[in-house]
Amino acid sequence: MKLAIIFGGSSYEHEISIVSSITLKSVLKKTQKIFIFVDSQRDFYLIDENDMKSSFFSSKEYLKKAKKLSLSKGAFETKSLLGTKKVEFDVALNLIHGRDGEDGKLAGILEFFDINFIGPRVEASVISYNKLFTKLYAKELGVEVIDYVLLRKGEQKEIPFSYPIIIKPLRLGSSIGVSIVKSEDELEYALDVAYEFDEEVLVEPFIEGIKEYNLAGTLADSWYLSIVEEPKKEEFLDFDKKYLDFSRDDKVQEAQINENLKENLVKNFKQIYNPLFKGAIIRCDFFVQEDRIYLNEINPIPGSMANYLFEDFENLIEKVATNLHKEKKIDINYLYINNIQKAKGKA
Amino acid sequence: MKLAIIFGGSSYEHEISIVSSITLKSVLKKTQKIFIFVDSQRDFYLIDENDMKSSFFSSKEYLKKAKKLSLSKGAFETKSLLGTKKVEFDVALNLIHGRDGEDGKLAGILEFFDINFIGPRVEASVISYNKLFTKLYAKELGVEVIDYVLLRKGEQKEIPFSYPIIIKPLRLGSSIGVSIVKSEDELEYALDVAYEFDEEVLVEPFIEGIKEYNLAGTLADSWYLSIVEEPKKEEFLDFDKKYLDFSRDDKVQEAQINENLKENLVKNFKQIYNPLFKGAIIRCDFFVQEDRIYLNEINPIPGSMANYLFEDFENLIEKVATNLHKEKKIDINYLYINNIQKAKGKA
Repeated sequence: MKLAIIFGGSSYEHEISIVSSITLKSVLKKTQKIFIFVDSQRDFYLIDENDMKSSFFSSKEYLKKAKKLSLSKGAFETKSLLGTKKVEFDVALNLIHGRDGEDGKLAGILEFFDINFIGPRVEASVISYNKLFTKLYAKELGVEVIDYVLLRKGEQKEIPFSYPIIIKPLRLGSSIGVSIVKSEDELEYALDVAYEFDEEVLVEPFIEGIKEYNLAGTLADSWYLSIVEEPKKEEFLDFDKKYLDFSRDDKVQEAQINENLKENLVKNFKQIYNPLFKGAIIRCDFFVQEDRIYLNEINPIPGSMANYLFEDFENLIEKVATNLHKEKKIDINYLYINNIQKAKGKA
Repeated sequence: MKLAIIFGGSSYEHEISIVSSITLKSVLKKTQKIFIFVDSQRDFYLIDENDMKSSFFSSKEYLKKAKKLSLSKGAFETKSLLGTKKVEFDVALNLIHGRDGEDGKLAGILEFFDINFIGPRVEASVISYNKLFTKLYAKELGVEVIDYVLLRKGEQKEIPFSYPIIIKPLRLGSSIGVSIVKSEDELEYALDVAYEFDEEVLVEPFIEGIKEYNLAGTLADSWYLSIVEEPKKEEFLDFDKKYLDFSRDDKVQEAQINENLKENLVKNFKQIYNPLFKGAIIRCDFFVQEDRIYLNEINPIPGSMANYLFEDFENLIEKVATNLHKEKKIDINYLYINNIQKAKGKA
């Protein structure tokens, strides 16, 4: 199997997507792979594996050395004087974090152009990218979420929580624009920061000392679930730290939790995953307080694909790639138009 | 202003999209326009205005006579021996009903390729295309919806409503796969029909004699709202009748309702519309029973754009086209990568 790793994108997480893809280059040792870069202008480039270093992108060397690709049905293509040539691969892996990758655009493009891919489909992308939709969906499935209010730029609304609270732009990942607000006099500044990134923000109570557990997995021919990790946390992971987090490839320690909690985390994960996230390897971040489990967020394209949480990540990619669900073919037979024309002919 | 009407698509509503576009050809008399057809294979074709007849598509004449288009940044292009040539237009109108058009794929493609368009964005598409998401979203905004249960193929679940009930595939428009079920012995067949189209279906109580009102509109430089229509109904519009419905261009009678109800319909419409549906002209279909208003569905690309509900539809298109909101540009400066490289250099 040959894998095409698509990364970059017009996204605040463009750079961490580069870091993620470089990490996967070393993690996926046995897998044949190629790399497709989406630059800030949303042009596609075929990147030679030897050029997969961060400086190749930050220096803009790719503009001179890499081949530009165009997209056509079923393929990315290179162009030369001799015509166009299809770039050969079996399955793409959507590794664009944030906008373009996680907001449903790339999913829509790849489905429309009939390119097999690992990653969330359009609906799954929208539900996980928008933190309000995530909450509505989870609640509908009986998965608890932390209480919240939605604020819109310019709108005055009472915040019904006592401080500290947490302010999050509605649509970004990787903690960008997120603030913990300890008292009312810090609120305005925190809102200004969040509104820089999104015209809608979510406000939640910030619960000190709440436990956090991450669980990743996928449903291919059967369920493949990772170990449960209790991520290290400072009061709050800032972007620099998160950024380094995306280059992780060391296996982590399994969280020391009882079987009952573990089973319940798995139950909640499966409830969220199936069937909406089929085709994707996702990581769900949960909060736990006094045995109650809350879904914090769904990462449909986690940093470096959360490879460090799996026993045999390379096998996992293979399993997902060979069990992808294709869109249903729709037969268009022009029955209605023909009938109408017949009816008109008789009139 | 030159408008590019995009229609067709790999959709059960492919044929009614053709009907819609032919209708708009005659409705938009003063507007300069071109037509881009997406065939069942998802190839793009530039259609000459004189060829905009249903037989041109049903006979597959377009395969011989129309120019194939490819998509590149900011443009659709024709290819010839002399090279590629950009197809000139200012704004596209997404007129693909159902899959591809209303499920977020085309929105994702047009945004990614930086083509201005009238139509729902990716999030708005997903929320209106999936009837469960529509309900969750409406409820969150305080807009009432008819009670429901979600069923999945193969799943046994008690239906908590008395008959008659209505069965709907979760993701289709235009009444496809929808049945009214009068008693339990009709249920299995109706579910089989619905599962032909979607693996998830919604079950609702069917409320006899409920009033239905449609209201269309958009928010451009200001609000533009249509008259309220009380659609003619037989017990139920079947697909053939709906199909003819998409060719409507006669102005309709305003529904005879009191000011209070009208105001409340408008209030609910605006609540649903803003800000999620900006850029689109949508039609909301409401049910009313004893002064309670329920959102039945959101049509983010209504048949023939609900032109017949507006006083001056041509002006409306112009207003929307000139007030489109562009995606935020994201500045990618490689600050993090450069910092890391600097840090490494010093180490």
